[in-house]
Parts: sequence; C-alpha cells; structure tokens
Amino acid sequence: MRQFVICGHEVPTSPDFSLDALASEAGRLDLLCRCLNAAFLTSHGLRDDVRVHLVLQDEFTVTVDGATVRNLHPDERSTAALVRTALEHREDAIGHQPAESSPGISIRRVGLDVVLEECARDGTVVQLHEDGEAANEVKPPENPTFVLSDHRDFTDAEATMLAETADQRLRLGPTLLHADHAVTVAHHYLDTDAYTRF
Amino acid sequence: MRQFVICGHEVPTSPDFSLDALASEAGRLDLLCRCLNAAFLTSHGLRDDVRVHLVLQDEFTVTVDGATVRNLHPDERSTAALVRTALEHREDAIGHQPAESSPGISIRRVGLDVVLEECARDGTVVQLHEDGEAANEVKPPENPTFVLSDHRDFTDAEATMLAETADQRLRLGPTLLHADHAVTVAHHYLDTDAYTRF
Repeated sequence: MRQFVICGHEVPTSPDFSLDALASEAGRLDLLCRCLNAAFLTSHGLRDDVRVHLVLQDEFTVTVDGATVRNLHPDERSTAALVRTALEHREDAIGHQPAESSPGISIRRVGLDVVLEECARDGTVVQLHEDGEAANEVKPPENPTFVLSDHRDFTDAEATMLAETADQRLRLGPTLLHADHAVTVAHHYLDTDAYTRF
Repeated sequence: MRQFVICGHEVPTSPDFSLDALASEAGRLDLLCRCLNAAFLTSHGLRDDVRVHLVLQDEFTVTVDGATVRNLHPDERSTAALVRTALEHREDAIGHQPAESSPGISIRRVGLDVVLEECARDGTVVQLHEDGEAANEVKPPENPTFVLSDHRDFTDAEATMLAETADQRLRLGPTLLHADHAVTVAHHYLDTDAYTRF
C-alpha cells in the first residue's frame, strides 16, 4: 500500500464554492485534484493499492481509497466535484468516524496528527525534504506514506508533527516540484524500485 | 532546450467549446493543459528552457515558449483559455507562418511532419516506447524532444513519421503513464541526469 497525505491550507471546509473557480475561491483545490489524478491514474487504469488523504485546513480529512473509488476521472473539474460532495457530508462525520460520500471517498473530522499517527502504524512515513537522502541511494520502504503540502509551506505545527512522525527524509531530485508532480515522481521512484527496474 | 510534442487527436481546431467541458466537448483538452503545466511549472517558477508543441488533429500546432510565455497558471481552466485564444487566431496563421495569440503562445497551420522535422534539426527526437532502452542506462541527449500522444494512441501515419524521425527509443519505466505524468518523469530523468544527480 502506498499512501499520500496532502495538506490543503486554503481549500474551503464547506462546499460553498464554484467548480469554475478552483484556483481562486476554492483555495487551489485544482492542485489537490491533480494530486489525486497523479496518485491513482495510469494510462490503462487505476492504482488500487493507493490511498490519499487530503487534510483540509487541519480540520477535515477527505480520504480516497483506490481499492473502492469509482468515477474518478482525470480532469480537475470532475474530481473537484467529488471533493465538494464529500464536504457536503461533513455534518455526517461525527467524532472521528468517517462518512462515506461516494464509493471509496469519505470525510472525517480529523487533522494531520491523527492521519500521520495512522500512517505510521501502517508503514513508513517519508518526509520529502531537500536535505534528505538522495532517492537513488535509498531502497523504498514497503508501505510508504509520502507527506506533501499544497502551494503553501507546511505550518510550523505541521512541520513539527511531521518531523516527529517521519521515519525517513528523502530528496526526490534537484528541482523543487509542485505537489502533484512530486506524487508522480514518488510513484516513479517506487515503480522502478529506486531507479533499478524499468 | 527541452521540447515536448503532444498530439491531440480530438481537441477541436476551432474555439467553439466551453471551458466547463474540457474533458468532453473539448476533446480532452484537460490532458493537454496538464501537459503544459508539467512541462513548464516548478514549485518556484517556470522552466524557460522548454518549448511545447500541441499538434491538434495534425492540422494546427499551438506552440508555447517558456522563455516568453506569460500568464501560464497551473489550473486546467486558465490554461485551456490560453489555448482557446490561440484557436481564435487561427485565421491569422497564413501558410506556415505563426500567429502570436498571447505572449509566448502562437498558432501555425502545420501538422506533426513539420514539427518533427524542426525538432530533429534542433536536437534529438526521443520516442517513448515500452520496447525502448531503459532510461537509467541512457545518458540524456543535449537538446531532446519527447513526443507523446494524448488519450489515443498515435495514428499509423504519426507512428510512421515518428519512427522515421526519432533518433532514440526510451523506456521511462515499467508503468504506462498518461502523457502529463510522462512529461513530469521525462523532466525528472533530465533534471537528475539519468538518475545520478539528486
């Protein structure tokens, strides 16, 4: 299982936004939608061994499970509609219990701390960091979770949580990438078993 | 200079489509927009040593030049608007002369044959192919052009042109990727100098 956690700092936690304005009034939800695309979609199908957690303003988490998700298309607009539908179900998420909004997509009232704790139990939390070990020198862990931020840097609180939970710091290359491109490169690193299997 | 050629088989060659329906009535223009995003945008700026040619139905080519392009944002919708503006200028493209529709973006009445010929003059045309050489065993050429197709395979005519022009066949990994993800992986291959520099 590969997991990705993406912190969205400005994405609304209520569904009151237009699909025509993902980059503005929806707080750069377009980027999070491209992260879902990069995490799940290949040329001939869907990666079913992947789970993505979109942590919205450290308050709600929308989780997409590749094993059960349906109707996930490549374009930003239709993916954003799925996230918006999840937000429409936010009041059904009571305590830390998830509310399923569509097949394979659920929303919970939890922040980064809970998500990271769960991922650490599931496997190895990897922090992508420019001072980390070079990816070509590190064999991929078995059940990795990659933690990424949107167009904003991690907040101090998030960075602290991440530093405490992460088992590994990894440098994916010399160029600082947007989160969605980093997801693609992380998959490439894993698919090729650290650039040894093509 | 890095160049990418993307063949769009169903993208309209006239601007009569809605930005709300990129994945349907605009013939999967969403994918081509993500290719532009992947080709040009990094976390802290724009790759100015990149040029992308979107070959539309082998009839018109929209070229975006990283050195001069302006107003290229990450989201699909605003990028699609730039392509649509280029198509609004298609009647200004006379013979093989380009018509500039916005800074750094121009449209020409040429198909894949002309574009490939020019790219071959500029450097090395690379065909991404599952039977090609493994990317970790090939040093990147100096001025590569990567040629990709949208959600459709290359037509027989395109495949023949490509086989005749390509100097190299390269396999980017064991997973067949969408064109936009392949652009990201190709950059990663070049940025890391074939996975040796992180």
